Amino acid sequence: MTSSIQKISFIGSGNVATHLAQAFYKAGIQIHQVYSMSCSNAEQLSSKISAEYICDIERLDTNVDLIVFAVKDEVIKDLSEYVIRKNPLVKMVHTSGSIGLDVFEGALNAGIFYPLQSFSKSKEMDISKVPFLITTQNTLLRNDLIVLAETISSKVYVYSEDQLKHLHIAAVLVNNFSNHLFALAQDYCNKHQLDYQLLLPLIQETIHKIEQFAPIDAQTGPARRGDYTIIENHLKTLSEEEESLHKIYKLFSDSILNMYQLKS
Amino acid sequence: MTSSIQKISFIGSGNVATHLAQAFYKAGIQIHQVYSMSCSNAEQLSSKISAEYICDIERLDTNVDLIVFAVKDEVIKDLSEYVIRKNPLVKMVHTSGSIGLDVFEGALNAGIFYPLQSFSKSKEMDISKVPFLITTQNTLLRNDLIVLAETISSKVYVYSEDQLKHLHIAAVLVNNFSNHLFALAQDYCNKHQLDYQLLLPLIQETIHKIEQFAPIDAQTGPARRGDYTIIENHLKTLSEEEESLHKIYKLFSDSILNMYQLKS
Repeated sequence: MTSSIQKISFIGSGNVATHLAQAFYKAGIQIHQVYSMSCSNAEQLSSKISAEYICDIERLDTNVDLIVFAVKDEVIKDLSEYVIRKNPLVKMVHTSGSIGLDVFEGALNAGIFYPLQSFSKSKEMDISKVPFLITTQNTLLRNDLIVLAETISSKVYVYSEDQLKHLHIAAVLVNNFSNHLFALAQDYCNKHQLDYQLLLPLIQETIHKIEQFAPIDAQTGPARRGDYTIIENHLKTLSEEEESLHKIYKLFSDSILNMYQLKS
Repeated sequence: MTSSIQKISFIGSGNVATHLAQAFYKAGIQIHQVYSMSCSNAEQLSSKISAEYICDIERLDTNVDLIVFAVKDEVIKDLSEYVIRKNPLVKMVHTSGSIGLDVFEGALNAGIFYPLQSFSKSKEMDISKVPFLITTQNTLLRNDLIVLAETISSKVYVYSEDQLKHLHIAAVLVNNFSNHLFALAQDYCNKHQLDYQLLLPLIQETIHKIEQFAPIDAQTGPARRGDYTIIENHLKTLSEEEESLHKIYKLFSDSILNMYQLKS
C-alpha cells in the first residue's frame, strides 16, 4: 500500500532524526526540510537526503504531509506551539517514548511515532527490525502512520498512551539499567585491577540465552539457587567498600529470592 | 607446549563437566573416569568421551594427572575430603568462581580452574573464547594448569583468590542481575498486556553498543540526562502498583545520577 504521506519535514537532526529521515528517503519519500537550532547540523543531515536545511523556525513550511519532531523532550512543546499556531491542521508526530499526546495541545492531527530502539548517529542500524509504536486518537492519522511506518519497518504496532508509558518503563529497565549494571561492573573491576573485558563473553551469552528462553526461565546465580552463604559472603565483601553496590546487590538478591519464592 | 597433564578424571557430569570434558577430549587428552551420583548421568557423558563411568566414589582411581571437581559448591568439600584421604598428593581443581582454595584443606596440589561463562548442556559453546582463571599457591601446578587451559582456550589468566572473589561479584552483576532486569521487564509487560518480545532488539543493541564503547560511556536514558520529570513520572506510575520495581527504579536512577554527578 502506498503511503498517503509522501512529503515530510523533520524538526531535529540528532540520532533519531538521522536514522528515520534516511530510512524514509531510501523508501522513496520526499524529505522537504530539516530544521535544527544548529545550522551546520541541519545542513549535514539535509545534504544526505536532498532536503532543504533551515535553522530559523520561521522558515518552516507547514505545507507538508507530516512534520516529525525528533528533538529532546524538553523542547517539543515550544517548537510545536509555534507550528500549531501557524497551521493547526498539519499532521505532526513526535518520536519520544516518554512524552504523551498532550504536548501537542491545540493540534488537530497529532500522534506519537516511537521507534523502540537506542540509536547512535555513527552506528548503522537495520531499521526494518526496529519496532515502531504508533499512538493517536485520530483514526485517519492512525492509518496513515501505520502505512508510513510499514514502508521502513516490518514491526508496526498501535498502542495507547498508557501502554506506551508502561513500555517505556520496561525499556528503561532492559536498556538503561542493564547498561548501568555493566558500568558498575566496569567500575568495580577497575578498582580491583581486574580486566573488565573478561566479562564480555559472559554478557553476550546472557543475551544469547534469552533469545532462546524467556528470562524468567533463564535465571541462574546464587540468589536463584537460594545460596545464602555466597550472598552473605558477597554482601560482606561489598559492605566494606561499596555502599551503593552493596544496596543494589542486596535489593536484587531479595528480588530474585522473592520472584522464585525462595525467601527463608 | 604439550601439557604434562594427559589423563584427567571428572567428578561431576553437569553443564561445566560436560563442556570441559568434551573440550579436553577433542584436544587429545585422555578422560579416565567420570563420577556422578547418578549412574545414568555419568554414563551419558562418559560414552561421548571414551571414559569409564562410576557412580560409587570408592571406585575412583586417584592415579591420574588431575581430578576436576565440576559439581555444586555444596558438595565439593565432602567429595574432596574423600579423595584427599585416599591420595593427598593427587592434583585437583574445582571449577567454581565462588569457592576458595580452603575447601581443599589437606591437599598438597590444589587449585581453582574457573571458566568465566554460563554453560548449558544443550547449548553449543565456542570454548576457545571462554576466559579461564587459574588460582593456586603451588607454582608447579600453576604452570601445568596454564598449559592445560591453553590446549582448549586462548584466554588464560592467573588470578589470586581475592581477585577471583571480586570477579565473581562482577559476574553476578552482569549475568544474573541483568537477566533479572529482563525477567522483571517480562513480568511487567505481561501484567500490562504488552509483548515483551518487542524489547529484544533494544536488548541486543544495548549489548552491541558495549562491544564498541565502554558501558560507562554508553549510558543513556532519563537518569543519564538528569531528566527528573520523567524519573518522577515513572516512579509515580510504579508506586501505585509495584513496590519492588519502584525500589529498583529509584535505586538505579539515584546510582546513575550519582555516577555522572547529576544529583540536584
